[in-house]
Formats: sequence, C-alpha cells, structure tokens
Amino acid sequence: MAQRDGSTGSHRAAPEHTHPDDVPVQTALAALADPVRLTLVRELARSAEWSRSCGSFDVPVGKAALSHHFAALRDAGLVEQRDEGPKRVNRLRKDEFEGRFPGLLDLVLRAD
Amino acid sequence: MAQRDGSTGSHRAAPEHTHPDDVPVQTALAALADPVRLTLVRELARSAEWSRSCGSFDVPVGKAALSHHFAALRDAGLVEQRDEGPKRVNRLRKDEFEGRFPGLLDLVLRAD
Repeated sequence: MAQRDGSTGSHRAAPEHTHPDDVPVQTALAALADPVRLTLVRELARSAEWSRSCGSFDVPVGKAALSHHFAALRDAGLVEQRDEGPKRVNRLRKDEFEGRFPGLLDLVLRAD
Repeated sequence: MAQRDGSTGSHRAAPEHTHPDDVPVQTALAALADPVRLTLVRELARSAEWSRSCGSFDVPVGKAALSHHFAALRDAGLVEQRDEGPKRVNRLRKDEFEGRFPGLLDLVLRAD
C-alpha cells in the first residue's frame, strides 16, 4: 500500500499504487518495454530505497512525460512512491515484483 | 537461420529472421506486450512445430495486421517461419529464446 502522509505539506494527491500480485503479465512487460522506464528501473535498482526523487534521474523527457512514465511503473507494480515535503521519492518493489514475475526483473537488470 | 526454399511455388520473399541472441531485451518485451502476439505465442507453444499456418490462428485482426505481428515476433527471435507451397508455417523458437532470456517465455505461457 502507498504511504499517504497528509502532513507533508505537498498539495498533490498521494500516488496510487497497484500491487504486483494484481498486475497482468502484459502490463508488466509493456511497462518494461520502454527505454526511459528501463533506465528508471535500472537506476532505482542501483540506489537505496527512498533515496531517489523523481527529478533525480537523467532521462531525456519533460516533466509531464516523466510523470506518465512513473505512473506506468506504479501501475505495473514496479515502483512505490511517497511524498516527502516537496519531493516525491521512490523505491523499486523488487521483492514483491520478483514474487509475482520470477526472474523478469533480473532479465532487465542484466547488461544487455 | 530461415529456411529459404525457392522451389515452393510461392512468390513472396522468404521471411527474414533475427536470432534471439541478437535481440535486445526491450525488443523481446515489446513483442510480448501485446494481446494478439501473446495469443499467437501461447497457441504456438501448444502446437507441434511447423504445424500452424499464419491463417490458422483465431485472432481478431486483418491480414495486414497479422503479417505485422508475425514480423514483430520474428524480429524478437520468437518465431521462425517457412513457406510450404501457398502456406507460411511457424514454429516457436522455444529453446533458443529460453537460452537468451531464461524464464521469460515460461512467464508469459503461465496462466495469468
């Protein structure tokens, strides 16, 4: 479940999450079949949980597109987000996703 | 490699194939992240090699779209095709694809 902390001072709606157990395989594959989202997932895998804000990734897309990509990752059960003051921080749902789709994350995290 | 049999009487160009070893993970994921192609792959997995012609699948798309879907499957190293007289027949490249992307095919062949 998403953490919903109304006291952060952010006026954005808290992000909605889908648990990997509720994700169809097609949704998971589509989420990972995109170069920007692959970069986000790979960088998150190399980072400590909750250490990366959405703005901290070096991807060649604007703010609206980036927001769309993070929504796709949440909908695929790949990323959990929470707001910390003005920042939205992220973690990769490595264990839950692995439980639902064994081996898939390892495949995309391997060097290509 | 594709079998290229010029004596079949078909005037179509022989299909071009990509070996799974030459397929980027993103291409493989994109090929599988489509409901029509998932159906084709799942039905091929249940059928004997070379037993299914392109026209034998129950998918809700026209001929041109179907041809496009099979091209995407060839480009992803998932399907090998050859022409037998007027028919183009198919086999799933199960072992080669498994060697390149261990576990991925099993994930999409599992009931969802």
